[in-house]
Amino acid sequence: MSILVVGSVAFDSVETPSGKRDKALGGSANYFSISASYFSEVKLVGVVGQDFPKEHIDFLQSKRIDTAGLQVTNGDTFHWSGHYMNDLNEAETLATELNVFAEFDPTLPESYCNAETVFLANIDPDLQLKVLEQVKNPKMVAMDTMNFWITSKKEPLLKVISKVGLLFVNDMEAQMLTGESNIVKAAKAIQAMGPNNVVIKRGEYGALLFSGDEMAFTPALPLAEVTDPTGAGDTFAGGFLGVVDKEGGIHNADVARRALIAGTAMASYVVQGFSFDGTKNLSPDDIITRWSQIKSLSDVRDDLRLGS
Amino acid sequence: MSILVVGSVAFDSVETPSGKRDKALGGSANYFSISASYFSEVKLVGVVGQDFPKEHIDFLQSKRIDTAGLQVTNGDTFHWSGHYMNDLNEAETLATELNVFAEFDPTLPESYCNAETVFLANIDPDLQLKVLEQVKNPKMVAMDTMNFWITSKKEPLLKVISKVGLLFVNDMEAQMLTGESNIVKAAKAIQAMGPNNVVIKRGEYGALLFSGDEMAFTPALPLAEVTDPTGAGDTFAGGFLGVVDKEGGIHNADVARRALIAGTAMASYVVQGFSFDGTKNLSPDDIITRWSQIKSLSDVRDDLRLGS
Repeated sequence: MSILVVGSVAFDSVETPSGKRDKALGGSANYFSISASYFSEVKLVGVVGQDFPKEHIDFLQSKRIDTAGLQVTNGDTFHWSGHYMNDLNEAETLATELNVFAEFDPTLPESYCNAETVFLANIDPDLQLKVLEQVKNPKMVAMDTMNFWITSKKEPLLKVISKVGLLFVNDMEAQMLTGESNIVKAAKAIQAMGPNNVVIKRGEYGALLFSGDEMAFTPALPLAEVTDPTGAGDTFAGGFLGVVDKEGGIHNADVARRALIAGTAMASYVVQGFSFDGTKNLSPDDIITRWSQIKSLSDVRDDLRLGS
Repeated sequence: MSILVVGSVAFDSVETPSGKRDKALGGSANYFSISASYFSEVKLVGVVGQDFPKEHIDFLQSKRIDTAGLQVTNGDTFHWSGHYMNDLNEAETLATELNVFAEFDPTLPESYCNAETVFLANIDPDLQLKVLEQVKNPKMVAMDTMNFWITSKKEPLLKVISKVGLLFVNDMEAQMLTGESNIVKAAKAIQAMGPNNVVIKRGEYGALLFSGDEMAFTPALPLAEVTDPTGAGDTFAGGFLGVVDKEGGIHNADVARRALIAGTAMASYVVQGFSFDGTKNLSPDDIITRWSQIKSLSDVRDDLRLGS
């Protein structure tokens, strides 16, 4: 089993009510990879500049993440700057310096082409497609996207969506993509575009999965302190697809629910620190404890009795 | 076991994207009572005018709701008019005619004073207190409130809150009441005011319970069609307290979770029709089926396995 991920490998400069970090390790592919690495083998596809420190590559490799697909080219690494004010649900972007990412032309190492699970993180749909075409026979392809691609590149976006088995979106993106404000109708409309599975990410309210005709839900873990929400969505996707890859697919709703909770557990750790402070040193016990805590939020043993 | 409820007994004129109804049966005490009647015995405290049709009283009594505490006085019944636009989460009030409710002076029949469970629906905190003082030895007192009382009658409101065991609020009310935007901190601050149990109602995102040091959560049932959200909160409270009354209190988190799901199930029925169309003719099987469906959204059988 292995998971191929393509996305950004970046420096993040972030300010939140808890503090700030300048040029810390970030990027969708990194957040996904570190999270998924606790569950399965990860093969990373991305690009960095010559300013990218060896210690970051060592860190990824220390998590047994395959970096053969990480290109190093002339120029600077992608750099995102943003801040979160009191509403920790939404970042305000201050600057996006694409740098080497602007010319990114992903070519997969031969050893990557047999990956069973693929995650196309939130990047240009043309790049998502280019990577997907190089994978031979994936069992599960999942993707993320955002409002920017829905408005500026809808045609190639719909083409990628038609080829994947799972789409991660939030409520607003689901509505933008389908024109449906009701989330059940929006999810059905997305399923009609191709993916049998749709995960609606609702931040602090949890995540809702539509898988064929079934639904599954996990609440987020209510936290008294959130340090930095950056990377929560990709970390969620990493835990979710980590379980799916390990189980060989979403065979039934129980796998889906275990995966939802795993993604939620990983996301709850990442938001408790800046960059990878919350996820870099987890033990299997840490993950299982958090997973059980989230599971127990809605665990019910006895059945309902009625009548007075 | 029995539940005493005090609140409004009203006519509602409502318009939603699905249609409109003029002067249909409504009011917080009614929504609560009909819902709770499927689980336990209900004693209703309220006031109506002489325009209140006998058929409505017959309807309540057909559900074995005790109406000995329903005063009939000279004047017109409370009448609320409102509409919901595309955002079904929030009503816009067009008119509130208090009528006989303005002079409401609740006096409980002797037979009501031994109720084990009490629900003080969203009315003037001075009236809530007046009712509560007449109940001899309740096991569980729960209350609802709203932004209007938080801003206009904070002192008597805090007095009632200090005397109850459970408060129902939404995120915004919890924040207004405590000054805390983080929901965990807000819930702890409310617990410090008195109630050991706090239910945060999150509409289509579900409901979160803080009970002592434990948390519990149930998602709302995602529905493709919502006809009229009026009464969802009181119907939720009715199902929740119906289970709590039947079980003799919130002895453990399992009771709390069963109660959360029961409230959610009842609310999912009421929003599927105007007035009481969605809840007036339910069978025990209907309720158990819907309860099981909501439970299964987050049911997980197998444990998580880790490692690649």
